[in-house]
This record gives sequence, structure tokens and C-alpha cells, in this order.
Amino acid sequence: MWRDLAPIGRNTTTNGYRRYAWTDADADCRTWFKEQAQNRGLTYDVDRNGNQWAWLGDPEAGDAIVTGSHLDSVPDGGAFDGPLGVVSSFAALDELRARGARPTKPLAIVNFGDEEGARFGLACVGSRLTSGQLSVAQAHALRDADGLSLPQAMERAGYDPEAIGPDPERLARIGAFVELHIEQGRALADTNDPVGVASAIWPHGRWRFDFHGEANHAGTTRIEDRRDPMLTYANTVLAARKKAKLAGALATFGKVSVEPNGVNAIASLVRGWLDSRAADEETLATVVGEIERAAVERGQRDGVDVRVTRESFTPVVEFAHDLRDQLSGLLGGVPTLPTGAGHDAGILSASVPTAMLFVRNPTGVSHSPAETAGEDDCLAGVAALAEVLEGLACH
Amino acid sequence: MWRDLAPIGRNTTTNGYRRYAWTDADADCRTWFKEQAQNRGLTYDVDRNGNQWAWLGDPEAGDAIVTGSHLDSVPDGGAFDGPLGVVSSFAALDELRARGARPTKPLAIVNFGDEEGARFGLACVGSRLTSGQLSVAQAHALRDADGLSLPQAMERAGYDPEAIGPDPERLARIGAFVELHIEQGRALADTNDPVGVASAIWPHGRWRFDFHGEANHAGTTRIEDRRDPMLTYANTVLAARKKAKLAGALATFGKVSVEPNGVNAIASLVRGWLDSRAADEETLATVVGEIERAAVERGQRDGVDVRVTRESFTPVVEFAHDLRDQLSGLLGGVPTLPTGAGHDAGILSASVPTAMLFVRNPTGVSHSPAETAGEDDCLAGVAALAEVLEGLACH
Repeated sequence: MWRDLAPIGRNTTTNGYRRYAWTDADADCRTWFKEQAQNRGLTYDVDRNGNQWAWLGDPEAGDAIVTGSHLDSVPDGGAFDGPLGVVSSFAALDELRARGARPTKPLAIVNFGDEEGARFGLACVGSRLTSGQLSVAQAHALRDADGLSLPQAMERAGYDPEAIGPDPERLARIGAFVELHIEQGRALADTNDPVGVASAIWPHGRWRFDFHGEANHAGTTRIEDRRDPMLTYANTVLAARKKAKLAGALATFGKVSVEPNGVNAIASLVRGWLDSRAADEETLATVVGEIERAAVERGQRDGVDVRVTRESFTPVVEFAHDLRDQLSGLLGGVPTLPTGAGHDAGILSASVPTAMLFVRNPTGVSHSPAETAGEDDCLAGVAALAEVLEGLACH
Repeated sequence: MWRDLAPIGRNTTTNGYRRYAWTDADADCRTWFKEQAQNRGLTYDVDRNGNQWAWLGDPEAGDAIVTGSHLDSVPDGGAFDGPLGVVSSFAALDELRARGARPTKPLAIVNFGDEEGARFGLACVGSRLTSGQLSVAQAHALRDADGLSLPQAMERAGYDPEAIGPDPERLARIGAFVELHIEQGRALADTNDPVGVASAIWPHGRWRFDFHGEANHAGTTRIEDRRDPMLTYANTVLAARKKAKLAGALATFGKVSVEPNGVNAIASLVRGWLDSRAADEETLATVVGEIERAAVERGQRDGVDVRVTRESFTPVVEFAHDLRDQLSGLLGGVPTLPTGAGHDAGILSASVPTAMLFVRNPTGVSHSPAETAGEDDCLAGVAALAEVLEGLACH
């Protein structure tokens, strides 16, 4: 399975993956998923939001045990974030069949669309739409860097954008959802465990900081006449690190856009996107508030107007305790650990009992071509997922 | 003339001009220039480097008096930077003819190509090639953001890239070059003069700072495990302002590119371009050295590797004193002033006697759609240029 998936959307310069929603690379990943389903004689369907499903058993029967993840990537992402969950799902199903396990409930594998939000700036669009956490109007307003809207992009990819919207009937047929994912930190590496169970997802969000100054000539404008938003941005980047560190939280500026972005022009506008996360919502709100205050204060000194827009926010997610304990028991008491990363499982947990399995990541590197997982650990992940699916669906 | 030129390459969102070398907008500007030449019965030719010339009198006679400027723009530039010099040249020629002035020397108007360097990152490509200050090999190595080389871009625009190179014969036929330009500061506004004469151009250069860190997940990577180049960049932006201010120099980061530039990914690479200028070369070298040292020091703390590349450097230009004094005399003792901005006149001054006229800019704003010059001042500029051309070419 990995061999066919590996070349899709890989940039040959960076060796990173660029599998953005509704692009050609995404379409190739979707073709791969459909073929995997068909090769195994599974019932394949695509829901109204473009998420792909492969069913063993009757999709209509209810109380289905669903596993899966996503196939899209961040810009220059690694090979495992998303695909490891989907590949492991098919492999676990193969393992169950090889064992002769007889599911008493329907089993399904899902590929959620646009999990990373790399193209339209909002993560988990497929699962948010399905669960009603993103309205159709909000989805229509999403635009990519070229100004193309989500419906336009779906249409160009051959999907019907008129169909999108909440899908409570489909969710009502799910008894539990389990997502396997590569760990995005080094907790399992530190405890020397190949597999763990998720306890919670930190609350997190994205804030866009717009720094409005005045474009001017970099070679002739006196320092006292300048309104340079790059200075305010730079000061805010450093303030974010400082405030987050003091609070034990995380705050990162990883994306910037500058207008006019000319070497000899003072910028008129710098946009920086803040990603911030903390163990609880109160800490997160405090840290982001402090960063915003630091930006506004420095902006006053620089003659720069600062506007902050919250582009997304995901409250703390506590995964279903029963299911979590059941998984931990099925796997012989593997460790439970929280994560700072958002997942479709976090979105779905508001609607159905949800759990996650993590596979060890020896370096902890994530969202980078250097992300890696050992073969033995990947096989341990498949074995654990097979164990969980058998435990949930066959008894 | 302004009416036909105004809509070319104007972005309707920003109202700024995007007239980059060898693009469609550039071609439209060139068509406009050719028509202006032909409408006046001037001899039109394009030199081997794509600079356009319009001749009154015999181009081969020698000792020609040449005026003109450029028609390309920075990203989202103003209407006057460049075009004011070209439009004023044609208007001054009309004025001379209306007066019945009889030039005893050839007169020419020139449009130098790619003055701003917005596309290939190097300013004054047309005049540098002509004067031999840019080698053919260096020109071949220039690439735009899409990876297209200068020869490829010229070829797509219908020009022969094989022809480019130094043009000493053409320069030998020039007796003097006078470039009229909108002032890019507020010196004339402060002294309340519509027109001034340039004394010198500050030495200036562009340095690319590459900050190499490690891409990683913004939501899961512990602060102590990060190698985030955005922090090093931010600290360098603030250091540049501080060092320049202390030295009475200018230092600006106006252009940035980030990889992978994802909201939830710590950057792997931040590239920032430094534009720096000072009254003398020693001060400039000191300031840039201090900025580089600050970047490297902070990089060591952040685990970020810093590499600095000088992309261009223009030594101090003292305009020909005789010509400058002659112009100042012809114009009744208007003020002389230095400028921090580079110009084709600065490049040519190494080969032929060169002077510049500046037209008042009430706000001092430059390289921005807000750049402006009053109609009366523009007409005063035309009158001054006509006076200068008559003084130089008709006696």
C-alpha cells in the first residue's frame, strides 16, 4: 500500500508532501483509497462532504465501528501524518480477516477530507461539516491563496458543492470511532512504548494578526517618517514565544504574508498567523490576550494598526473515558497521553464515542519530511488497531 | 500622455502598479513609448539590452544630450516613480519645439528596462548591462520567483536574449545624461522648492539573510525541542532598525519568504532581504556587519543557521560637479540634495557625465500608490528640463 501512495504529491526538491484538498495530488490519494476498498470487496461510498468510506458489513445497520484518518498534508509534510492511520486501518482489516474474526457490527474505514486545512486555512473541514461544527455558509466563505472558494475547488475536482452540510444520519450509524495516528511528540519515545492511547486534545486555535503600516521607499524614507509593520510583527513574534514559555503553553508564528513584499519597499501590510495551544482554555485565552496586547502596544510606537481575527478555535477535547479505558485494557495497559494537535477524532468526539491510538515517533518531528516511524512500531500499531477493532466489533 | 499610461499594470485592489520587466504590463508601457516617439516623428530604436530610445537628430552624430528614466515599477508602486521622467522628457521636447529652439546636438529620450528589479531581484538591469556593470553571465543567472531566467523572460516577450551585453559604442555617443525623477523624500517640501538638482546617491545594497531551522508541528513540539528560524528573523529585523538608527543609516526588511509557510508548522527556512544605505560606504559596511553579527548570535541561541549573501551593492555616486553646477545655474540656483535611492543615472555616471533633477513630493511617500506630485510641480519639472535641454543642446 505504501509503495503506491509514496510518490503522490511529493515535492522532489523538499521531499515533503503537498497534498492539499481538492488538488490533483488529493485526487490521486482518493483514487488510491477507492482502489484499496474495491480490491478488498468493501462497499465504497463518498458522503455529501467528500469524505470517503469503505464498509465491511451493512452501512445501514448502525452501531458501526469506524477507523481511519486523512490523506491530505500540510505544506511539505511528512509521509505518516494521516496516511499511517488509513494504511493501518486497511492492514488491520486484512489482519482480522486472516484471523477469521467475524464482526457482529459493521466496520468502516474513513478518509476525512481536508484535515490539515493547508489550502483554505481551516483544519478538519470534512469532519467539521459532517458534524455540523462548520456551517455551509462558513464553508462557502473559505478561499484559498488564489481566491478560489471551497465550492469552486470542489467543483473543479468533480464534486458537487451543493451537497455539503451536516450529516447526522451518518453519524447516528456510528457506534465508535478510533483514529490511529503517528505521535507528534516524544512522549512514547521517552517511555519506550510503541503504542499509546490518547487522553485529551489541548484546546487550540489560529489567530490572524494584520499589521497595517504604510508602504514607502526603503532607501529614502527617514526613520522618523516610517510606519513599518515589519517591526511590529517582529516584536510580536518574540513576545509570543516569551508569553507562551512563561505560561507553559505553545505559541508559534509559522506563516507570514507581506505586501508589497519588495526588497526596497517598506511593507504596507504584514499578516502573521498565530497558532497557540495550552493545557486548558483559560491559560490559552490569557496567553493569546497577552500576545495581542503586546502587539497593540508596539503598534502604537510604530504607527502601525493591529487587528486580530480568530480564524479557528477548538475547545479542549476529553476523549470518551469508557472507550479510552476499554482500549487501554485491550492493549494490556499501554500509556495514555494528551496531545497538542487537532484531529478529526477531536471534532467527531462531540458527536460519537471517540478514541485515538498513537504510534511512537522516535524524533518527535512532525509536519516535516523528517517525520518518521519505525517499521516495527508501524506493525505494532496495526496489531493494536486490529486488537481494538476485534474487541469492539466482534464481541 | 498620462491618460494612456495610467491604466497599464494597475492592480484594481491596491491601486498600485505592477509593471515588472518583460511582462504584459511592461510590453504595454513599451508600446506607449514607441507610439510617443513615432507620433513626434522621432527616430525610434531599441538597443541590444532592450532599452528604448527616441532620437531627435542623427543618433550617430555623437555628443548627444539624453534624458529619460524608466517605466517599470516596484510591486504596487506609484504612478510617478519612473514615468514622470519619461513623460516630462517628451513634454520638454514638445516645449523646445514650441519655442522654436534649434538643437545643435542630437537629443534623445530613453526608457531603461527593469530599473526597479522587482522581478529578478537586481535593480537597473538595462543600464547595468549597457555600461558593462552587469556581465552577460550574471544576467543569465538571474531568475524570477517562478524560476524563469532573464533570457527566457526576454524571449517570451519577443526580444533576442542572445544580443545582451555591454554597449560602449552607444555610450560613446552620449555627451550628457539628465534624468528627471520624483523626489523620494521631503527635502524639497521642507525647503519649499518645486525642483532640485541631485548631488550624490548614497551607497546601498541588498543582502539576503537565510535562516535555516527545522520544520516541526506547531502544536506538539516542546519549546526546548524547537529550532524556529522565525524567532531569529524577528530578532534580526529589530536589530537592523536599532543599528541603523544609531549610525544615522537606513536598514529595512521589506521582503520575506517562509518555508513551508503553514499556520501549524514551525518554519524550516525564513529568508529575509535587507536593504541598507548610508551616507558613506564605511558606515554602511559597519551597520550591515553589526546586523549580521546580531543575527548569528541570536541564531546560536535558537539553533538556527544564518547565512548572509550580498545580492547587490552600489558604491557612492557623486554626480559630475560641472554638469550639476551648470544645471543649478540654468535653473537659477535651485537647491542640490543627495538621495538614498538608486537610479539608472547612478549607473551611467560611471560612463558619461550625468545629472538628475528632482520634482517635489509633498508627502515624501515613494514606492507606494500614495506617492504623489502636484500638477504645478510636474509642469515646473517639465519647464526646468526644457531649460536644461536647451542649455545643453542648443548652444
